Amino acid sequence: MAKILIVTGDAAESLEVMYPYQRLLEEGYEVDIAAPARKQLRFVVHDFEPGFDTYTEKPGYTWPADLAFSEVDPGAYVAVVIPGGRAPEYLRNDPELRKILKSFFDADKPVAQICHGPLLTAAIGGLEGRRVTAYPALELDMQAAGATFQDSAAVVDGLLVSSRAWPDHPTWMREFLKLLRTKS
Amino acid sequence: MAKILIVTGDAAESLEVMYPYQRLLEEGYEVDIAAPARKQLRFVVHDFEPGFDTYTEKPGYTWPADLAFSEVDPGAYVAVVIPGGRAPEYLRNDPELRKILKSFFDADKPVAQICHGPLLTAAIGGLEGRRVTAYPALELDMQAAGATFQDSAAVVDGLLVSSRAWPDHPTWMREFLKLLRTKS
Repeated sequence: MAKILIVTGDAAESLEVMYPYQRLLEEGYEVDIAAPARKQLRFVVHDFEPGFDTYTEKPGYTWPADLAFSEVDPGAYVAVVIPGGRAPEYLRNDPELRKILKSFFDADKPVAQICHGPLLTAAIGGLEGRRVTAYPALELDMQAAGATFQDSAAVVDGLLVSSRAWPDHPTWMREFLKLLRTKS
Repeated sequence: MAKILIVTGDAAESLEVMYPYQRLLEEGYEVDIAAPARKQLRFVVHDFEPGFDTYTEKPGYTWPADLAFSEVDPGAYVAVVIPGGRAPEYLRNDPELRKILKSFFDADKPVAQICHGPLLTAAIGGLEGRRVTAYPALELDMQAAGATFQDSAAVVDGLLVSSRAWPDHPTWMREFLKLLRTKS
């Protein structure tokens, strides 16, 4: 079966890794999780509490990375998924990951990104002239990356499917799977 | 679209509520979450840590219950999902919930249960003579309930789909959706 890559790391949002991971396995894809190193990753829970003006963070699930970024052959995958959380903020400085993501854009393959995930595609210049959504607090970052920001559950622009955060998973994955079935 | 009920409460396992909830929404079902009261529920993260012989528990996601058990009309739903975590241990003593679950069994509708969820169907005598799986530490409880325990990712016995725990979600939901498409 076709293979899909998830790129993430410590402090990724638990549900934003686990929902697409389990969903794509359920669909019959092979799914590899790549991270800075091949190790047990520690994800976080981003949620809301009364009286707290932004999201809160708690320790979340742990899960093994299948591959280090340096071991990834992007040509082996039909698509890439970029979860959110705090991981994308530091991962965008990883030169190996930037190379991987550029390959997916250059080869015109489906890309799914959610929440803070678009910080990564912004960092490689992949959002120039595109319509995207993202965690709404990132609207300025999306504009700085040359994208048009839309505050909606999912924005599909060509082969790029963006969503705001984990409550949008049903819409995000419905759109991404539609794209995968027709375009990969 | 057809409606599906999830029955759960505080200390349910986060992923075991959120994966089936979001997955069934993605599929186009209406999904209601029922709990002892209509309030913001607090789920937990059950996971593994090196050196700890059983699962660990951390605070997880919060999510609103749509309905109190006392408000549920089981006739309005085509199926029921029973997540795990620590919730089923105390929920099985709730007479309203027991009435709801009995209705689903009496009407021969699909039931999906995972991890500690089978403690609930055991409590209403629903497992007598059935083949089930569950969190493996519950093998004795399943035998006491008159069931045959199998340690596998998913066990389908008629309209009852059981799984061990959240790493089995892909198999669990694949089997449950197959059943829903043909039987409800």
